Amino acid sequence: MNAEIIAVGTELLLGDILNTNAQFLSRELSGLGIDVYYQQVVGDNPARMKQVIGEAISRSDLVILSGGLGPTDDDLTKETVTDYFGLPLYFDESVMEEMTAYLKGRKLSVSNRKQAYIPEGAIVIHNNYGTAPGIIIEKDEKIVVMLPGPPRELEPLFCEQVRPYLRAKSDFVMKSKVLRLFGIGESTLGEEVRDLMESANPTLAPYAKDNEVTLRITAKAESEEEADHLICDMKEKVTARVGAHIYGEDEEELYAVVCRMLKERGMTIAAAESCTAGLFSATIANWPGASEILHEGVVTYANRAKEKYLGVSSQTLQSVGAVSPETAQEMAEGIRKASGADIGVGITGIAGPGGGTPEKPVGLVYIGVAHEGRTEVLERNLHGTRKKVREASVMNALFAVRKILEKRS
Amino acid sequence: MNAEIIAVGTELLLGDILNTNAQFLSRELSGLGIDVYYQQVVGDNPARMKQVIGEAISRSDLVILSGGLGPTDDDLTKETVTDYFGLPLYFDESVMEEMTAYLKGRKLSVSNRKQAYIPEGAIVIHNNYGTAPGIIIEKDEKIVVMLPGPPRELEPLFCEQVRPYLRAKSDFVMKSKVLRLFGIGESTLGEEVRDLMESANPTLAPYAKDNEVTLRITAKAESEEEADHLICDMKEKVTARVGAHIYGEDEEELYAVVCRMLKERGMTIAAAESCTAGLFSATIANWPGASEILHEGVVTYANRAKEKYLGVSSQTLQSVGAVSPETAQEMAEGIRKASGADIGVGITGIAGPGGGTPEKPVGLVYIGVAHEGRTEVLERNLHGTRKKVREASVMNALFAVRKILEKRS
Repeated sequence: MNAEIIAVGTELLLGDILNTNAQFLSRELSGLGIDVYYQQVVGDNPARMKQVIGEAISRSDLVILSGGLGPTDDDLTKETVTDYFGLPLYFDESVMEEMTAYLKGRKLSVSNRKQAYIPEGAIVIHNNYGTAPGIIIEKDEKIVVMLPGPPRELEPLFCEQVRPYLRAKSDFVMKSKVLRLFGIGESTLGEEVRDLMESANPTLAPYAKDNEVTLRITAKAESEEEADHLICDMKEKVTARVGAHIYGEDEEELYAVVCRMLKERGMTIAAAESCTAGLFSATIANWPGASEILHEGVVTYANRAKEKYLGVSSQTLQSVGAVSPETAQEMAEGIRKASGADIGVGITGIAGPGGGTPEKPVGLVYIGVAHEGRTEVLERNLHGTRKKVREASVMNALFAVRKILEKRS
Repeated sequence: MNAEIIAVGTELLLGDILNTNAQFLSRELSGLGIDVYYQQVVGDNPARMKQVIGEAISRSDLVILSGGLGPTDDDLTKETVTDYFGLPLYFDESVMEEMTAYLKGRKLSVSNRKQAYIPEGAIVIHNNYGTAPGIIIEKDEKIVVMLPGPPRELEPLFCEQVRPYLRAKSDFVMKSKVLRLFGIGESTLGEEVRDLMESANPTLAPYAKDNEVTLRITAKAESEEEADHLICDMKEKVTARVGAHIYGEDEEELYAVVCRMLKERGMTIAAAESCTAGLFSATIANWPGASEILHEGVVTYANRAKEKYLGVSSQTLQSVGAVSPETAQEMAEGIRKASGADIGVGITGIAGPGGGTPEKPVGLVYIGVAHEGRTEVLERNLHGTRKKVREASVMNALFAVRKILEKRS
């Protein structure tokens, strides 16, 4: 089956919003084994919509449209598709009732009634996230799926109703698992697993994100069990080669892995931050329930603050400077002592764009991690903007903490 | 002039990357007064590329293509467009020299030579950001612009070479200014300036972003001066109505405005953070040169830390709780005293998703700002996820600091 995605909305053509729906739908369809050949964006203009939608239906088996299902006269997606197939519309009382229920006493405007008209023979995608129902039309061996434009409606409606619908159309099962890696570049990773990437089933695809790389394993099989087996096999092969870099799977980000591991071990963490200036603690606090693992932390941007809060010795600061392994170590040990946390983290570096020297260039960062009488210190030479260097510093610190926690399982 | 944007690349159809080029180009063209009617994405497939490119050139005055200019056999954009117009390609020695210079001793592969072939009569967009040159073809009253796909190449090449080229084609000047507002919702703002939004020239368009709203004023005129005058006039009208919410213009974000104002006044700031847990300090430190205005800060997630670092009284914590105006005030005053900074900020709240009660629901945040013997305390009821509540807390604190600084100009 080949597919085409059409986003409707003048705001996309003005560049006011990013077309995240196209990426979401493409990724989902790809995961279902459906090839996307085209993505299009068209404004709320009747003639151009008619032309684009007609062309898409004629050349693609499956057309997914987002947007243009709202209550105003500008919203023409349903009308255009219905016209194309020559289908009559009927007023659907149950949809009207759902909209009324969704609005919980807020008044339905007269124009909301427009949204309750459904093409005859269509499947209604009931919407608990907004007023506009989605619609699926099957006709002339074509499938047209219409979804509301806001991602907070489109994404759950796709996952809950459209994905199972499309999956049922298929005579095979597609499953995938994402391995998350840190501390290895995309090209090095590619070299390590090049031969595995040539596998046709399951496939193995690397993808570089900010500060990490993921590997997606996708299997096509006749049953869930068979797909799971294929994935498990491939995962073992990948792990044998680059297992030291794999920190997690699927949606769980590095900070969440670290927080979960801390909680499982009943441990606490505290950070003393110079160049990251609070970003490490703030990242830990992103985790719901952070209060069990994080009690305090300090931002010690100035040298005086490093002495005051952490007891970093002025001799260290004078002899080797604030950006040094010695200072990172004293910061990590200082915050561990001051806070009483099980793990103390110290981060000091040159985030740039100014402040670099030939000996200590922009991007040089030292990370200390103090735990039970031992302190490890890493040196990193990070690249990119000030923001990137600071974010990468946090990621490196998290990965170092994860390594220590792993040994204490 | 009407335009169409085509992104070429199978990675877009797989959903591996977001099509940020489409948004960037749409916004830029809109700023030049050029209407974008269509955006398309097509994979590296010769037949489909030929069809999509042919259709685009036949229906649009200007077609901008991104991607598919690389050295491999998959890269077919230039070849497809050249075929369409029936133009011969010649080997351009100067382009070859530029590529060699860009690669600085790294070896040119044989396939890089492919990138030095240029259609006859075309304008070369010289690329200092990568190897693939961009190309402009003018033929049969059509303009086709081809740009490399990576945004770090496409964006500067567009701004430096394509924008001036397109501007010269136009017999009028388009200019715009963005006003940045905080503390007012898009719908309330819309009501305040509804009549101004009906103006045809200059136009006034609101746009809601995370935690802020912007108003873009766009003027079309025969000269720069006339455009500036139109913009200035509209800005005055808007300021008369919602001036209290305007914190800045164009690209300068709220944190940068606050940092600049602190530096201009020779002042320092320090924060004591509970629910935001370092995010306020980390945001300040995003500013290059932050060391002049930020020396230290504390993360006081636990009550004990609030007592230890800030001297918040245990009586306050017991009687009114950690999330209270009293605690926010004591935190702000405590960090101001401990750090010696001119301004002390205290943030305490319930970020969720757990921890809310009927009296103190998720999203309730208190922000204290202590300065020269006075402390102001704000109460906010913020909405959304844990991340949103924490980010909005930082924005509210920044806006409060800005107000205080404004009075000390």
